[in-house]
Amino acid sequence: RIDGTRLWNSLMELARIGGTAKGGVCRLALTDLDKRGRDLVTSWARAEGMSVVVDQIGNIFMRRPGRNNALPPVMTGSHIDTQPTGGKFDGNYGVLSGIEVIRTLNQHNIQTEAPIEVAVWTNEEGSRFVPVMMGSGVFCGAFTLEHAYNATDIDGKKVRDELERIGYIGDQVCGDHPIGAYYEAHIEQGPVLENADTVIGVVPAVLGLSWYDCTVTGFESHAGPTPMEIRKDALQVSTFIMQEVVAIANRYPPYGRGTVGQVQVMPNSRNVIPGQVKFSIDLRNVSEDSLTRMHEDLLAYLEAMRKKTGLSIELERVSYFPPCPFHPDCVDNVRAASAALGYKTMDVVSGAGHDAIYAARLAPAGMIFVPCKDGVSHNEIEDARPEHLEAGCNVLLQAMLASAGV
Amino acid sequence: RIDGTRLWNSLMELARIGGTAKGGVCRLALTDLDKRGRDLVTSWARAEGMSVVVDQIGNIFMRRPGRNNALPPVMTGSHIDTQPTGGKFDGNYGVLSGIEVIRTLNQHNIQTEAPIEVAVWTNEEGSRFVPVMMGSGVFCGAFTLEHAYNATDIDGKKVRDELERIGYIGDQVCGDHPIGAYYEAHIEQGPVLENADTVIGVVPAVLGLSWYDCTVTGFESHAGPTPMEIRKDALQVSTFIMQEVVAIANRYPPYGRGTVGQVQVMPNSRNVIPGQVKFSIDLRNVSEDSLTRMHEDLLAYLEAMRKKTGLSIELERVSYFPPCPFHPDCVDNVRAASAALGYKTMDVVSGAGHDAIYAARLAPAGMIFVPCKDGVSHNEIEDARPEHLEAGCNVLLQAMLASAGV
Ligand SMILES: NC(=O)NCCC(=O)O
Ligand SMILES: NC(=O)NCCC(=O)O
Repeated sequence: RIDGTRLWNSLMELARIGGTAKGGVCRLALTDLDKRGRDLVTSWARAEGMSVVVDQIGNIFMRRPGRNNALPPVMTGSHIDTQPTGGKFDGNYGVLSGIEVIRTLNQHNIQTEAPIEVAVWTNEEGSRFVPVMMGSGVFCGAFTLEHAYNATDIDGKKVRDELERIGYIGDQVCGDHPIGAYYEAHIEQGPVLENADTVIGVVPAVLGLSWYDCTVTGFESHAGPTPMEIRKDALQVSTFIMQEVVAIANRYPPYGRGTVGQVQVMPNSRNVIPGQVKFSIDLRNVSEDSLTRMHEDLLAYLEAMRKKTGLSIELERVSYFPPCPFHPDCVDNVRAASAALGYKTMDVVSGAGHDAIYAARLAPAGMIFVPCKDGVSHNEIEDARPEHLEAGCNVLLQAMLASAGV
Repeated sequence: RIDGTRLWNSLMELARIGGTAKGGVCRLALTDLDKRGRDLVTSWARAEGMSVVVDQIGNIFMRRPGRNNALPPVMTGSHIDTQPTGGKFDGNYGVLSGIEVIRTLNQHNIQTEAPIEVAVWTNEEGSRFVPVMMGSGVFCGAFTLEHAYNATDIDGKKVRDELERIGYIGDQVCGDHPIGAYYEAHIEQGPVLENADTVIGVVPAVLGLSWYDCTVTGFESHAGPTPMEIRKDALQVSTFIMQEVVAIANRYPPYGRGTVGQVQVMPNSRNVIPGQVKFSIDLRNVSEDSLTRMHEDLLAYLEAMRKKTGLSIELERVSYFPPCPFHPDCVDNVRAASAALGYKTMDVVSGAGHDAIYAARLAPAGMIFVPCKDGVSHNEIEDARPEHLEAGCNVLLQAMLASAGV
């Protein structure tokens, strides 16, 4: 069994890097704070005798050898980048659970048959740079290294330059790295487990996701003298599209999701009718068919709006992954480990994307969810209970041992 | 008659300070560029032998003595701050027309009975700081110097500090300064004159304006796992209010105007349901009664939305001036001067606010409009024809002479 207090203390120590007044964390991908977080985690890994390798997209692989190092490693991991107003647990819990598994194995002198690796994936959140889950996406070939390198943040800074700047651009070719099995522990980020008073969520699948940038171009002009009937107000047209995003999600229950989270108005002056508005669209669903229909509904609505308003409305898809079912072996291992440890489980479909869905393209993969307070995540008040975090990490340890062999 | 070429050349020279690639100007109030603009204009005034005085809010008064300096000056003026994506003429035309009037008087050795002053008012646009028409507003006592000093831009910078930084915080007490009459030449910023193929707009009145900051507070949470039905999406609620702003304006034609120009979404991340949205509301109309009813409609709608959504919706009024009719003497002088010069005129109600409406609280005031291309202003492609600008400046000269006495 792992040491819940040690895990908790590490979580709290890492959370101080970028800690906010409201108790959350702001540690955006590839910032100085991200570098400090990476330095801390790798120092802990080295203290446990692990080797540390960084690949070209900045993914970090921390390895504990097994008895048979010809075997592909059993891997766990997650990310330590956060949302601008993020919490202490999202991602961080998965990485530090991996470290805690290693500490436990070392403490009890347990040797595994296959080597064990803990991964820190680059830019999972997708908040500063798209595509989301960038590091694991490049690793599994979902998109190219080139594509990821050229992603820019809102200030025009490039991934490649930022990786170099913080010193986390490695030599290892992305994906040049076999995996035997992959597990990821994570807070649920939704209300299902808490409402059902259940400690462990077994994750059968992850919702597919489609992200877009939508740009509406009207005509800038003075808010005073310009009569209402001749305006080409890019914001007004945008508000109807924003409402439609939610309407589309509601049309495909129970897993349909639609969100506009990011908006940029130009020139963003009180007395200027907005000439251009750019905003993000996030659509999700559990089946590829429903997600495709949501996509088509969106296209049809935009086409109707173009006709109705005469304004230019552009849509670019900036991230996509289909719904991802996990491998029955891994799902079963998580269920069996929980049962052996005496934890109550239930199936919880993940509404959030995770690096595990890309790892799942290369190896059997599975996830372990634990409850978070009020189902809240991507919020500074995100919270989780030490005993739940400990339980999830115990399940991770047992599931990994089942895959790695003792 | 004034020298149209000299006026045009000065306009083009001033437009280079902050000139943009698209041919517009970005010279926000109290920036380094604003300082450079002020330095240039005052250097031109000094070259004409004018005295230059700056008051505590940074208004600049450039004075040419009259025969009887006990008389209050006949004043003209406008502003040289611009929108973020502004044009070359808005405001600048009024200030440089004043300089051109002085140059013409000097060239022809004309002495006026009353002194003549050209004013550059601080922060007319209201784009960087509210209240709008700040300099003239403090000057006429519409709000206090203290209130204006404490206004902050989007980065939290204060008016007082910025005035000090650019060296335009003067000693003269605001408003400690009588005015005999006030005229302001301006591009129309709307389509009326151009559509009627008319050179001079006589301005009977200016629409009243009510500006607000609206803040909707919901609850930040993850765009993936959070079911649609439990969301408190501050942006979705905001979109309905933004649409209502336009609906309210349409309810009070033909002068009702409603605009949302500035929006800030928090935390502004793609996969976070917005927890808070702040946006501006701009309402205008020609009668105080209709503007009051628009205000009440807005309050009623927000109250209904609070009840319907349970979200916190705050509204703060940040600028207000009632509709402003101009003084019949000045309006008549403009009409008479135009007739004497042989220019076709028509009445045009101003949709934009102008420093003249605050000057009108202290002295008889009037305005002269000239057409702008396609009625477009607050846009980098704002344009006006040299012969129209020349005509407006000739009318200004004659109207001022009528008030000042030769
Ligand atoms: N787990 C998580 O917050 N992932 C971020 C990507 C997403 O929006 O699903
Ligand atoms: N003339 C002008 O653009 N004034 C700015 C204030 C307003 O929005 O009316």
